Amino acid sequence: MHPALQTFLNGKISLSPEHEELVSRCFKQKLTKRNEILVPHGATARYVYFVAKGCLRVFLTRTNGSESTRFLIFEGQMGTAFPSFILQQPSSACVQSLEPSELLLLSYEDRHMLQKVVPGWETMDRISLERAYVESIQRIESFITMDAKARYALLLQNNPEMILRLPSKIVADYLGISQETLSRLKGKH
Amino acid sequence: MHPALQTFLNGKISLSPEHEELVSRCFKQKLTKRNEILVPHGATARYVYFVAKGCLRVFLTRTNGSESTRFLIFEGQMGTAFPSFILQQPSSACVQSLEPSELLLLSYEDRHMLQKVVPGWETMDRISLERAYVESIQRIESFITMDAKARYALLLQNNPEMILRLPSKIVADYLGISQETLSRLKGKH
Repeated sequence: MHPALQTFLNGKISLSPEHEELVSRCFKQKLTKRNEILVPHGATARYVYFVAKGCLRVFLTRTNGSESTRFLIFEGQMGTAFPSFILQQPSSACVQSLEPSELLLLSYEDRHMLQKVVPGWETMDRISLERAYVESIQRIESFITMDAKARYALLLQNNPEMILRLPSKIVADYLGISQETLSRLKGKH
Repeated sequence: MHPALQTFLNGKISLSPEHEELVSRCFKQKLTKRNEILVPHGATARYVYFVAKGCLRVFLTRTNGSESTRFLIFEGQMGTAFPSFILQQPSSACVQSLEPSELLLLSYEDRHMLQKVVPGWETMDRISLERAYVESIQRIESFITMDAKARYALLLQNNPEMILRLPSKIVADYLGISQETLSRLKGKH
């Protein structure tokens, strides 16, 4: 099994050698280029992406053509254009690899098979869903109840890597603030 | 078992008589008054609420004192202040019964017990979580990609009851538009 996936699974689930073998076969490696689009607007998301190396971005395009960054998926995390993947319908969001990335892809069918066949897999998925849903709600709540400074401080606390590593255009967009405000906030810390 | 809960579970899970009895015992009835607060700001949400009759609102209070309606939970639906419930931490959101309501309460501990003990319960919860997470993402996306008119049309299609039944202040707030805009849109349909 890929060591990054092994690390991800450690502590979350304990697999028999046969199931470890099965899981390993289900996650297919894919190498991507910088800015490569994995799920274009209007396509159906067929995979969940585990990021072994690099970073993915899930974003929307507004009617005026500007982009809105919805999620960032870093090394050791899993994600996709979730509504499209779950409903198996065309996606309004795009998935893009921001950096040259090494991904492990789990298909819709294999995800269901693992939930049925591997003891503990569905529990792990249920807990991951709870966390993702909670984070999504907390992000919305932060837009309602916090100002730009508080949102920046929270990101600095939870995910300082994002601020160091990604283009400031994307960090500002993720925080829902202008690049000027972001650079002012950066200067203060 | 309460007939509304029975209807909710039909088609989602098939229970043995013993498990039906167990489930029935776990959901405790509570009657609420109009505008009763079930989870105040800063309290920990101890229950998931199944609405047998009435309607619940999950809302945030902004620093300027104004309210932001985050979710509405109608008859036959289940919900709570989810981050607080999952993390068992103080809630930033409040839960309120907008109308005199009949609720069935499932505690944090009983939810976990049912997931462990009742075959199919965790699968049902996993599928409910997927749907709730998808709806939450779609709602955010609608704010990014749609104008007020399109958001109103979507609500009219998915949940016409909400528009007929709830105070226009709350419907407007839920759609993120002014009451004047809402009344103009209502006039056109």
